[in-house]
Amino acid sequence: KSKWDVVDEKMLRRTFTFQDFKSAMTFANQVAAIAEEEGHHPDLHISWGKVVIELYTHAIGGLSENDFIVAAKVDAIKQ
Amino acid sequence: KSKWDVVDEKMLRRTFTFQDFKSAMTFANQVAAIAEEEGHHPDLHISWGKVVIELYTHAIGGLSENDFIVAAKVDAIKQ
Repeated sequence: KSKWDVVDEKMLRRTFTFQDFKSAMTFANQVAAIAEEEGHHPDLHISWGKVVIELYTHAIGGLSENDFIVAAKVDAIKQ
Repeated sequence: KSKWDVVDEKMLRRTFTFQDFKSAMTFANQVAAIAEEEGHHPDLHISWGKVVIELYTHAIGGLSENDFIVAAKVDAIKQ
């Protein structure tokens, strides 16, 4: 089962937890690097020990293949 | 007048805009460095060309001097 939630049938969301803010920020930068590679950018919500990633394709108002590709690449760096 | 909004009488919030995701992420990292220096960490909401910063002191359920110090240091890097 995927660890990503489908929100309102149009967005992928997953929460990752960390030991502190700095570790969360390091992970957020890894996700940002994937986003640049793919040319597809999530929303990132960073707080103490937590990063919430939201993937959505604005152009179609829902989910596209790009969202699932970025999700899979994020999963590959942090299970 | 301060560019920070006071939300619900207990949180400072300010939105910064950028030309793309990468520039927003660079700014978020500068904010994270200030947070580490001060030992006081905001919530960061990063999306394409936008960073929203929220400052709040959990221990007192509202605003403390630390919030205003971090806000001022953030202002110093991006007016």
